Amino acid sequence: MEHVYAVIMAGGIGSRFWPRSRVTRPKQFLPLIGGQSMIEATCERLRSWLPDEAILVVGSGIHEPICRKLLPWLPQENLLLEPAGRNTAPCIALAATVLQRRDPQASMICLPADHYIGDDAAFRDCLQQAVRASRDGRLLTIGIQPDRPETGYGYIRAAKGEGARPVISFHEKPRREQALEYLASGEYFWNSGIFVWQCHSLLQGMERHCPQIHQPLQALPPTGNPAFPQALEETFANLPSLSIDVGLMEPASREKDRVAVISSTFPWSDVGTWQALHGMREQDPEGNAATGQVVLVRSRGCLVEGGEERVIALVGMENTIVIDTEDALLVCRMDADQEVRAVIEDLKQRGWHEPL
Amino acid sequence: MEHVYAVIMAGGIGSRFWPRSRVTRPKQFLPLIGGQSMIEATCERLRSWLPDEAILVVGSGIHEPICRKLLPWLPQENLLLEPAGRNTAPCIALAATVLQRRDPQASMICLPADHYIGDDAAFRDCLQQAVRASRDGRLLTIGIQPDRPETGYGYIRAAKGEGARPVISFHEKPRREQALEYLASGEYFWNSGIFVWQCHSLLQGMERHCPQIHQPLQALPPTGNPAFPQALEETFANLPSLSIDVGLMEPASREKDRVAVISSTFPWSDVGTWQALHGMREQDPEGNAATGQVVLVRSRGCLVEGGEERVIALVGMENTIVIDTEDALLVCRMDADQEVRAVIEDLKQRGWHEPL
Repeated sequence: MEHVYAVIMAGGIGSRFWPRSRVTRPKQFLPLIGGQSMIEATCERLRSWLPDEAILVVGSGIHEPICRKLLPWLPQENLLLEPAGRNTAPCIALAATVLQRRDPQASMICLPADHYIGDDAAFRDCLQQAVRASRDGRLLTIGIQPDRPETGYGYIRAAKGEGARPVISFHEKPRREQALEYLASGEYFWNSGIFVWQCHSLLQGMERHCPQIHQPLQALPPTGNPAFPQALEETFANLPSLSIDVGLMEPASREKDRVAVISSTFPWSDVGTWQALHGMREQDPEGNAATGQVVLVRSRGCLVEGGEERVIALVGMENTIVIDTEDALLVCRMDADQEVRAVIEDLKQRGWHEPL
Repeated sequence: MEHVYAVIMAGGIGSRFWPRSRVTRPKQFLPLIGGQSMIEATCERLRSWLPDEAILVVGSGIHEPICRKLLPWLPQENLLLEPAGRNTAPCIALAATVLQRRDPQASMICLPADHYIGDDAAFRDCLQQAVRASRDGRLLTIGIQPDRPETGYGYIRAAKGEGARPVISFHEKPRREQALEYLASGEYFWNSGIFVWQCHSLLQGMERHCPQIHQPLQALPPTGNPAFPQALEETFANLPSLSIDVGLMEPASREKDRVAVISSTFPWSDVGTWQALHGMREQDPEGNAATGQVVLVRSRGCLVEGGEERVIALVGMENTIVIDTEDALLVCRMDADQEVRAVIEDLKQRGWHEPL
C-alpha cells in the first residue's frame, strides 16, 4: 500500500517488569515472548508488508543506543527521539507533523512497541481495512473483543454494525461490576491503543482539540535543520502530558461520523504484567512456566525466570513470580504484580539506584 | 571438674539448610544464629568451664580443614576424624575408646555441635548435675520439657521424681495425636541427644548391647600409632550405621536403674529447619526476619537471607523462606521446609553438582 506509514510508539519506561526491565531497558526492549525483543517483533510484523522507509519509531532519547542496536535497518531519520516523555498525544502529533511534511498524502498507523499479536496476517488485514476506512477522514481505532471483565483496560462503546463502526463513547478503566456489564452487553471493545488515520485528518483533529500541542509542533523547523533538536527540546519541555485518548479521541468521538472502531481478528495482549506474561508462556502440567536452571518441588502456577549462572529451587510454592537477575531478585505473589512499582519507589527512597 | 570431657559430635551432613549449607559446609559450620558458627558457639559454651584439652570434636574427614580453621585452639589430637558417617553409636564409641585410654576415670558429655542453647550458666549447671549423677554408673540423658506436640523429635518417658529420674522408655518420633497425649501427660521429655556418662559405663553398655561396634574399636591401635588412620578406616568401613538411642539407650533402659534423665533448665532448640530458625530470629512487626539488601512490600512471616551483592524484593508474600546465595536460590513455603531434601535429590539426578 502506498503512502502508508507505521509509527511505533516506544517511549515507555514501564517498571512493571522490574527487575527484568530497567530504566535503560524497559519492556519494549526485552525478549519477553520468544527470542526477539517486543519492539523487534513489532517491527518485523510490519516489515513483512511495509518498506523500511515507511516505518518510524518514536522513542526516548535515553534509548537511542538500544534502538539503533536492535533496529539497524531503521533509516536514521525514522527514529524520532522525544526529549521528554509527554504521553501519547505529543508523541503522535510529533510523528504526524514530521510525516505530513515528508508526504502530504500519508496514512498513519500508530501502535505501541510492546504488544503481543498472535496472528500476523490477520493483524495486517485488519490494519489495511482500517487504512481504507480512514480515507474518508475518519479516525480509526482497533478494538479488541473482550473475553473477560478486565478492569485494567479502557473500553470503547460502538454502534451496531459491521466493519468500521461509529464509536459512541470511550470509557476509562471500569470497576469490576461495570466491566461485567460491558462484557455482557456485547457493545464494548477494549481500547488497544492502535490507531489508524490520515496524517492530515489527525492534524486537523489536533488543531481543533489540542491546539496547545499542535501549534508548537507546527512551528518546529524541518527535521534536517541543525536547529531542530534544540527547538524540539524546548518545545517538549513546555508541552502538557496528555494521552491521545483523552486529548483527541474522546472529544472527537462526540462529533458525528468522526471516530470509528474496527474489531480485531487476531489474538492480542498488551502483556501488561508478569501475570499476563505467565498466561502466555508454555506451562508444565502444574501450570509452571520456568526458564533457567530451575528445580520445582510440589509447586504450581509459578513463573520463574532465571539464567544459567544459578540454580533456582521452589518448594511448596503456588502462584508465585520469581525473577532472578544479576543484581536484583523479585519474589512476588502472582496477583500482587501491580505492586512491583512500590519496590521501585522504595529503592529510590533508599538511594539504591543500581538495580533501577 | 576433673576427669570431665566434652565430646562434640560434628559429623552431620545436614541438607535441610540448603542452599546455605553445602556438602563442604553443613549446618554446624554456619553462623545461623549470631556471628559465630554453631560449632564455635557450642565450644565456647564449654570452654568457659572446661580446659581446651578436655574438649574433643568428632567430625567427618572432609571437614578437617574447616574444623581446624574455626577451632584453632583445639589440641591436634582432640579432633577425631571419622572415615565414614555411621550415625552416633560408632561416633560415641570411638570417642569413648580413645578417652578411656587417655584417662580411665574419664566422664564424658556427648553433645551435638549444632544445637541452640539459650542460657549458658543453666546449661553448665545441668551438665554438672548429670556428671555427678552418672558417677554411680548410670547413663544420663538430658530431657527437654516439651511446650508443643512436636512430631519431629523422639520422646523419653520418665518415672516421677526429682533430679535424675529413671527412664521408663524411649519413643521414636510420634504421630500428632500421640504427641498431644505425651504433652498432656506431663511424663515425657524430648530427647535432646545430649548424654552424660562415665567412659567405662558407656563402654560396658556398648560391650553388652553393641558388641559388633565395641569389639572392632577396642582392637584399634593407639591413636599416636602410625597404623591408626588406616586401621580406623578399615574398621569404620565395616561398622553398622546405628544411633546411640536405638543401639544402646533403648535396650539399656530396660535394665533396672541403668538409664536416667535430667530435665533441662535452659532454652533449647535443635534448629532443625529454616522454620525453626525463623522463630528464633529477631522479627519486624509483620513477623519478617531479613538479612541483606531486602525490600519488603506487603509481606509477612517471611525469612529472607541475602547478601550485599543483590537486592531482594518481596511483594505480597506470606510465610515464605527466601535464601539467596551466590550460585543457588531457594524459595520455599515455610511449612514445606522439610522438603528441601527433595531439591538435593533432584540436583544429584540432573548431575548439577556445583550447588550441592
